[in-house]
Amino acid sequence: MRYAVLGTGVVGRAVAGKLASLGHEVVVGTRDPRATLDRDDSFAGWLHEHETVRPATFAEAAEGAEAVVNATGGAASLAALTAAGAENLAGKLLIDIANPLVFAEDLPRFEPVDTDSLGEQIQRAFPEAKVVKSLNTMNADVMVDPALVPGEHNVFVSGDDAGAKQAVTDLLVSIGWPRESVIDLGDITTARGAEMLVAAWLRVSLALGHHTFNFHIAGARRG
Amino acid sequence: MRYAVLGTGVVGRAVAGKLASLGHEVVVGTRDPRATLDRDDSFAGWLHEHETVRPATFAEAAEGAEAVVNATGGAASLAALTAAGAENLAGKLLIDIANPLVFAEDLPRFEPVDTDSLGEQIQRAFPEAKVVKSLNTMNADVMVDPALVPGEHNVFVSGDDAGAKQAVTDLLVSIGWPRESVIDLGDITTARGAEMLVAAWLRVSLALGHHTFNFHIAGARRG
Repeated sequence: MRYAVLGTGVVGRAVAGKLASLGHEVVVGTRDPRATLDRDDSFAGWLHEHETVRPATFAEAAEGAEAVVNATGGAASLAALTAAGAENLAGKLLIDIANPLVFAEDLPRFEPVDTDSLGEQIQRAFPEAKVVKSLNTMNADVMVDPALVPGEHNVFVSGDDAGAKQAVTDLLVSIGWPRESVIDLGDITTARGAEMLVAAWLRVSLALGHHTFNFHIAGARRG
Repeated sequence: MRYAVLGTGVVGRAVAGKLASLGHEVVVGTRDPRATLDRDDSFAGWLHEHETVRPATFAEAAEGAEAVVNATGGAASLAALTAAGAENLAGKLLIDIANPLVFAEDLPRFEPVDTDSLGEQIQRAFPEAKVVKSLNTMNADVMVDPALVPGEHNVFVSGDDAGAKQAVTDLLVSIGWPRESVIDLGDITTARGAEMLVAAWLRVSLALGHHTFNFHIAGARRG
C-alpha cells in the first residue's frame, strides 16, 4: 500500500517507520522538505536510517498515496491538509492521529470540546475523504509497538465509513494490535471522546512519570 | 464517620446506601426534602429501604457532617453547595463526584474544558473546603461495587490537600477498591483530565451498549 504520512515529528516518524518496516511504500509529507531537512538534523538522520522513506511536499505525498495519515500537530492539521489538497484526499482513507491540544499560553484554537473535534473538522473540510480517527490516545512508541505496555489495552476508531474503519482495524492488527483490542466508538462525532481522553492521558502521564501506558476498557467484552 | 451526601439521584443513592452499609452515619441532602419526597416516589421507597439514612436540606446535611459528598448534577452543583453553606463546608473533606456534562440542547454552562473543571470551580468557590475529585469516571453501580467489572481497573483522585486525598483513598479501599487501583493524579487542576474522561466514557458506553466497564491504565505500575 502507498501511504502518505503528513508530519515529520515524533508521531509521523514512528508511524512512517513502522509502515515502511511492514513493506508499505511511504512518503513523508512536510510543508517544505528542503527547509525541514535544513532546519532539523534529526529528521535528516532519521531519513538516512529509513532509506525507503521519501520526503515530499504535503501535496506530492498525498497525490501519490492510496491512504493518508495526518500526523501533524493538531493546530496545524487543517492547514497541512489544505496544502495537501482536497483533490488528493478525495476518496482516500485519511487516518487522523492528531490531537487538538494546544500547549501555548495564548488562547487555544482547537481546545477539545464536547460539541466538536478535530476529526469532525477535518471530515467537514474534506467531505470526500474517508476520515478515521485513531491512535491519538497513546504515546507514539506505544502506537507502533503496543506490546510495550503489558496486559490488555485498547485503541479506538471513529469514522463514518465502515469500510475505512475496517481497513484501519486491519492495519492496526498488522502493526501488532490484537483485533479484540480495537474498539469502534461509532461515527466521526465520537472522535470527541477519543480527543478529550488525551486530557486525562496528559495528567496520568505526569502522575506516573512515564509514557509507556495506555487506556484499557475493563469489562468491554462483557456486554 | 458522619457523611452528608448531597443529591438524591442515582449517584447520591448509590453512595449514600454504600456508606450506610459500611456503618457510617449518612444524611442525604436535597433542596427541599418534603418536595423531593412528594415528587419522587422512588426516593421515598429508597429511604424506606435504608432506614438509617435521613433526608435533610443541603444546609442541615452539611452542617452536621464531618465529610460531604457532592453527588448533585454538575450544572446544579455550585448552587447546591452554596445552599449547603460555605461555613458548613469549611475545613471539611468535600468529595466531588459530579460531572460538568450538560445534556441539554441549549448552551452548556459547565462544558468540560482543558482550562478549568467543576472540581476547581468548587475549590475556588469554597476555598476552606478540602475538595477531592474522585469516582466521577464510572457508572454509579461500579463506584460502590468495583468488583462488578472484571480484572484490574482504576479510580482517580485529584486535590490540593494530601490528607484529604489519603482519607478518600482509605474510603475507596473500604468500599472495595484495591489500594493499588487508586491513582493520585495530582492537585485539583488535574480534575480537568478526570472530567474530560467522561466524554470518552459516554462514547464507549454507547459503543458497548452497557455501563459495567471502567478505565484501566495498563502499564501504570511499571514506571
